[in-house]
Amino acid sequence: MGLATGFRAWLITVGNEILIGRVVNTNLAWLGRKLTLLGYDVHRGLIVPDEIDDIAWAFKTALSSDAKVIISTGGLGPTFDDKTLEGLACALGVNLELNEEALEMIREKYEGRGLKLTEHRVKMAKLPRGARPIPNPAGTAPGVHIELRGKHVFVLPGVPKEMKAIFETHLEPLLKRIGPAVYFAERFLISKGIPESSAAPLIEEAMKLGRAVYIKSHPKFSELEGPVLEFHVTASARSREEAERDVERVTSKLRELLSRHGGRVYEVGSDEF
Amino acid sequence: MGLATGFRAWLITVGNEILIGRVVNTNLAWLGRKLTLLGYDVHRGLIVPDEIDDIAWAFKTALSSDAKVIISTGGLGPTFDDKTLEGLACALGVNLELNEEALEMIREKYEGRGLKLTEHRVKMAKLPRGARPIPNPAGTAPGVHIELRGKHVFVLPGVPKEMKAIFETHLEPLLKRIGPAVYFAERFLISKGIPESSAAPLIEEAMKLGRAVYIKSHPKFSELEGPVLEFHVTASARSREEAERDVERVTSKLRELLSRHGGRVYEVGSDEF
Repeated sequence: MGLATGFRAWLITVGNEILIGRVVNTNLAWLGRKLTLLGYDVHRGLIVPDEIDDIAWAFKTALSSDAKVIISTGGLGPTFDDKTLEGLACALGVNLELNEEALEMIREKYEGRGLKLTEHRVKMAKLPRGARPIPNPAGTAPGVHIELRGKHVFVLPGVPKEMKAIFETHLEPLLKRIGPAVYFAERFLISKGIPESSAAPLIEEAMKLGRAVYIKSHPKFSELEGPVLEFHVTASARSREEAERDVERVTSKLRELLSRHGGRVYEVGSDEF
Repeated sequence: MGLATGFRAWLITVGNEILIGRVVNTNLAWLGRKLTLLGYDVHRGLIVPDEIDDIAWAFKTALSSDAKVIISTGGLGPTFDDKTLEGLACALGVNLELNEEALEMIREKYEGRGLKLTEHRVKMAKLPRGARPIPNPAGTAPGVHIELRGKHVFVLPGVPKEMKAIFETHLEPLLKRIGPAVYFAERFLISKGIPESSAAPLIEEAMKLGRAVYIKSHPKFSELEGPVLEFHVTASARSREEAERDVERVTSKLRELLSRHGGRVYEVGSDEF
């Protein structure tokens, strides 16, 4: 979808709690949105249990793809089931090594509160060989960054507050610098009275007006009794003006077509969608 | 995790809206919970864009794994970007064929409301060769079931109401019949005053008391300033009594250990967790 910028991103989620449905994967949605707005093409999500082999499978699969950026969340902490770094090391065929910079970050956090460095705390400073720690402004487990074969791999904690803090302070500036110069624009429409199967050919017709414009329809309520459709129109382009122009042209056309076929169409903001 | 019943399930989510973060993947959480309670070991989640190649990759990867059950959601409908059945056909190396049973289901829905069978509506009746349609009690696109090499593949729509209706009326009875005779029990604890890194060795100690018992800790608030931990203790066993006994024994031990180390521990219900 979007502009084929060649900047693909893969997201890895580590955690049984996601697979057993105890926790909804809001981290993936948050990162997907952030990366899309930065011009990256979020191409895969892989969700794996807290087991070294499964985590290693996810990293190996992502590393053998054309992804430029790989970001994992979860499994980064002091407990026995935090195995993401072991899984990554296994995928890379390297050992975990005590990283002095990471140890210093962790020591500072705990010793500032009069707490000792136990075995479980030191564990968070054992990184795959070649990796660098990223400071965690909102918690104790440092994030991890490793660059190889033209790919950037980032390992973030699963606690949303910590994940977001590390992303915004460290990943976002870096991803902007190394990513595509791409701008993203979007519009939201709601139509009432047209079933999705009748809207299908109209969507195809409207999309022809924009090269990197994408219309996604989401049916709400019944397709047959009082159908309501939400449309998310997105455009990516090399300039903000071009993205806005493209999204505007396609959205106008879609409104016109839906109205002509008896739909009651409203444009809404992102919040009302 | 849980009892190694050998009944692994893989979940596939098809949809750009999930990858770009427009929609949070509640379908995966709902299915993960349902399957876990049925005794299945939910082992992977794969999220792919609305493209035939990517969808085919997901099914091929799942089909070459040891999964007994593969369930996809999304990409099943009348619009141009509903490509899940094409992707599955491609993974299986078969053609899409007009399925008379599916066509009848769709015809009934539309003609009952005086609507004709357009090309976009007929599209929903083109199934991979060898597949059977599953009635959709809450919408128009039939679900799809195909059995091969000892695996069951189910293709469900992405609209949550339709996905849930098809699952509960058709998949759940079948999955109960073909699945493991396994029972699942759980407890929820909240502790205040102990950082996760201090709780780590206590968790390991408590878990030794149960064979198929799993404790997952979720840190809330800061690890250092007023740490709050949530514990989800789960047990799987061949009988309900055994699962309850295991989860009870491990939870009691964990409570005792946390209290002895200065934690204020509360047991809560699933809803308060």
